[in-house]
Amino acid sequence: MSSTEISPLAPATAPSLPEIAGVRIATAQAGIRYKNRTDVLYVGLAEGTQVAGVFTRSRCPSAPVDWCRDALKAGKGARALVVNSGNANAFTGLKGREAVALTADIAARVAACAPEAVMIASTGVIGEPLDARKFDGVLAECAGRAEGGAEAWAQAAQAIMTTDTFPKLATRRVEIDGVPVTINGIAKGAGMIAPDMATMLSFAFTDAALPQDVLQELLSAGTKTSFNCVTVDGDTSTSDTLLLFATGAAGNAAVTRADDPRLAGFRAALDDLLIELAQLVARDGEGANKLVTVEVEGAESDPSAHRIAMSIANSPLVKTAVAGEDANWGRVVMAVGKAGEPADRDRLAIWFGDVRVAVQGARDPDYSEEAASAVMRRPEITVRVDLGLGQGRARVWTCDLTKAYVAINGDYRS
Amino acid sequence: MSSTEISPLAPATAPSLPEIAGVRIATAQAGIRYKNRTDVLYVGLAEGTQVAGVFTRSRCPSAPVDWCRDALKAGKGARALVVNSGNANAFTGLKGREAVALTADIAARVAACAPEAVMIASTGVIGEPLDARKFDGVLAECAGRAEGGAEAWAQAAQAIMTTDTFPKLATRRVEIDGVPVTINGIAKGAGMIAPDMATMLSFAFTDAALPQDVLQELLSAGTKTSFNCVTVDGDTSTSDTLLLFATGAAGNAAVTRADDPRLAGFRAALDDLLIELAQLVARDGEGANKLVTVEVEGAESDPSAHRIAMSIANSPLVKTAVAGEDANWGRVVMAVGKAGEPADRDRLAIWFGDVRVAVQGARDPDYSEEAASAVMRRPEITVRVDLGLGQGRARVWTCDLTKAYVAINGDYRS
Repeated sequence: MSSTEISPLAPATAPSLPEIAGVRIATAQAGIRYKNRTDVLYVGLAEGTQVAGVFTRSRCPSAPVDWCRDALKAGKGARALVVNSGNANAFTGLKGREAVALTADIAARVAACAPEAVMIASTGVIGEPLDARKFDGVLAECAGRAEGGAEAWAQAAQAIMTTDTFPKLATRRVEIDGVPVTINGIAKGAGMIAPDMATMLSFAFTDAALPQDVLQELLSAGTKTSFNCVTVDGDTSTSDTLLLFATGAAGNAAVTRADDPRLAGFRAALDDLLIELAQLVARDGEGANKLVTVEVEGAESDPSAHRIAMSIANSPLVKTAVAGEDANWGRVVMAVGKAGEPADRDRLAIWFGDVRVAVQGARDPDYSEEAASAVMRRPEITVRVDLGLGQGRARVWTCDLTKAYVAINGDYRS
Repeated sequence: MSSTEISPLAPATAPSLPEIAGVRIATAQAGIRYKNRTDVLYVGLAEGTQVAGVFTRSRCPSAPVDWCRDALKAGKGARALVVNSGNANAFTGLKGREAVALTADIAARVAACAPEAVMIASTGVIGEPLDARKFDGVLAECAGRAEGGAEAWAQAAQAIMTTDTFPKLATRRVEIDGVPVTINGIAKGAGMIAPDMATMLSFAFTDAALPQDVLQELLSAGTKTSFNCVTVDGDTSTSDTLLLFATGAAGNAAVTRADDPRLAGFRAALDDLLIELAQLVARDGEGANKLVTVEVEGAESDPSAHRIAMSIANSPLVKTAVAGEDANWGRVVMAVGKAGEPADRDRLAIWFGDVRVAVQGARDPDYSEEAASAVMRRPEITVRVDLGLGQGRARVWTCDLTKAYVAINGDYRS
C-alpha cells in the first residue's frame, strides 16, 4: 500500500489554524478499528451556534447522513460534533440508526443539549455494525479537556483521516461590516480503507454571527465551485458530509439575507477556503502523481460546461494519459463527445497548459509535440477546452489514474 | 504492453464462419499505419443488399460515422463496405470529410455503384489526417480476388483489429418461414492503439431478404441488449459503428414489418449473435482478467435497471475490487446509490455468484467470507442486485480494472 507515503502533491507545510471563540476540540482513541491512533473527534460548540450542511447525493446514504439531514431540519443549532474514523456506519440497517441515536444521546448528555443539536459523521469500513457504546466515557473525557489552539486543530484534521496521506487544513480572516471574523476548515479525502470504502468529510467553523438559512445559502453556493468540482474516480461515497458551524462569538451586526452586501467579503473568503480544501482532496487522490485542473469555456451554459468538465476529469482514458505524461488530446475530444452536452466538433480548441494542441476541429497547425510533452511532465497540469458555442464556463480538479490507484483499491487481499 | 498476450478470457477456439451468398471478402496491406499486417477490409455486396446501422452517441463523431449516417438516409442500399485499421479519421476537420468522400469514390468505381452505397468505418489513431489515396488500386485489387469462405471471414476479423488480442467472430443459422438463412458477424473491441484511442466496430451479414426499415428496427432493438450493455471503462469512442447487411440471396418470402411473427426466430438469432459479439468485446477489455456479468432486478423500470447496472459496471472501485478478488459488496451499494435512480437502501440484496452477501439493507446474517471469496477467484463472475422495488431488470457485461489497463493506456511513452 502506497498510502503510507505522503502524496507528492502535498503542500510543503500545513497552515497553523487560529482559535475560534466558541469552538473547543479534543480527539481520542476509541478503538473503533485502528490501533494506536486517534479515531474520534469531539467538538464542543458554544450556545447559539448555527449550522448548515451539504451531503452526498447517493440514494443509499449512511446512517449519520440521514441523522444530520433530520437534525438540520429540526433547526436546534449545534452544540457538539462527533466524528469517527474506522467505520462509516453505512448500510448497517436498523442497527446503524440505533448506533447514531446512541451516539447523539451520549454527546447530548456531555454537551447538555438536545440530541438534535449533535452533528455526527463517520468514515471508514461500511457494512459492519458500529458499536457506539465505545463513545460512552470517551466523549465526556474529551469535553473535559477540549481546547481551541492550533495544536487542537491539527489533531482534529489528523483524527478524521483514513487512507489520507496528509492532514488537510485551511483558514481565512475577513471582516463583516468592520468586525473581524475567522473561518477554519478541515477535510479528509476520498481515500480507501481496506477492505472498504471511505468518504469525503469536511467541517468548517466561523465565529461570525449568521442565521441558519443564511449559512445554508452561503454553503450550498460555495459547494458548487469547490467540493462539487473535485473528483478522484467518479465514484460517490455514501457518506460525503460538509458542515459549516457559526458560533456568533465575533459579535458582528445581524444580517438576515445571504445577498446582504456586507457579506460579500465573507462569502468570497468562504468560497476560497472551500476551494482550497477541495483541491487538497484532489492532491491526495489515491495514487495521485498529478493534480489536473480542467477548465471548460465557451459552453452553452455553466451547468453544461460543468458536465463536460466532469466528463473529462472522470475519463479513465484522459487520466491514464496524464499518468503517462502523454498530451493525448484525442481522448479529451472523446470525453467532450461522450458528455452528451451540446458540442460542435469543428469549433473545439484544446490547450495543455499554454500549448494549444487543437483548434477548429483538428490538430493545431503549429502543434509542437515537444512543447506539449514538456507541459505533461509537470506535477500540476491544466487542460483547457473552448467549445466556441457560448459563455458557459466551469473549472474542476482531479488527479491522474495510476497503477497505485489499482493497487490501493484492488491488491490488499492478494 | 500486454496487448501481445492473448486475453485469458479468450474462447478456446474461434468459430468457422459459413459462406453467405452475395458477400465477397478481401483484406490487404495499405500501409495506413502498421507494417506487415493487413489493415484494410473490403466487402463486396450483391445488388439489392439492404443495410441498417447503429452508431456512437458521441457528440464529436468521426468523419466515417457522419458518412454512414448520411448514406443510410440516402437509402440506396449497400454494395461495398470499406474498413481500415490504424487511423480512425476522427477530429480531422475538412480533410477528414474529404478523405471519406475520396474513399467512397474509389470504392464506388470498384463496385460500380453510387458513392452512397459504400459504407465506411475507420479505427485507430485519431487527429491525424488519413491519406485515402492509399486505397486507390488496393480496393480494385481486393474486389478482383474477394471470396466468401471461412478463411476470408477469419481474415476479415483479423484485419479490423487494433490492440484486440484475439479476432471476434460469431455465426447463427435460422429459418424465416421455412427458408434457412445465415447470419455472420465480426467485431473489434474497445482497445487502445498507441498513442491514441481506438473504437468498437462490428459488422453483421445475412442472406435474408429484409427491407431497410425492418433491418433497422431489428438491429436497434438487438443493440439494446448487446452492445449497449457492454462497457470496458465507460469511455465512449468517437467511432463506434455497428452495421447489418442483408443480401436477400436466401430468397425467403417478403416481410414488411419487424414484428411479423415469421421473423421471431431470426430476431432471436440476431439478438443472440449480437450478445455473443458484445461479450467477446468485454472478454478482450484492456488488461482484463475477469469477465463480470452485472444483473439488476427489482428496479422500477428496465431503463432504471440498466442505468444502475451500468453504474456498477463502470465503477472503478467495483472493478478494482473484482481485480483484487475481493467480495466488496459495499462498493456495489455505493454504485447503486450514485446511479441517481430510485433505490431503497433497506430493501437491497446483493449476490456474488450464488452467494448472497447482503439482504434487507445490511450484511447477510449467514454471510460466509470464505464462500464469497471462492466466487471471486473465478475468471467469470456474476454480480446480482435485487432492488426490491418493481419488475425492472437489466444485464450488462464488463471486465475488471487492472494495472495492465493503466499500463496499456498510460505507459507507452515512459
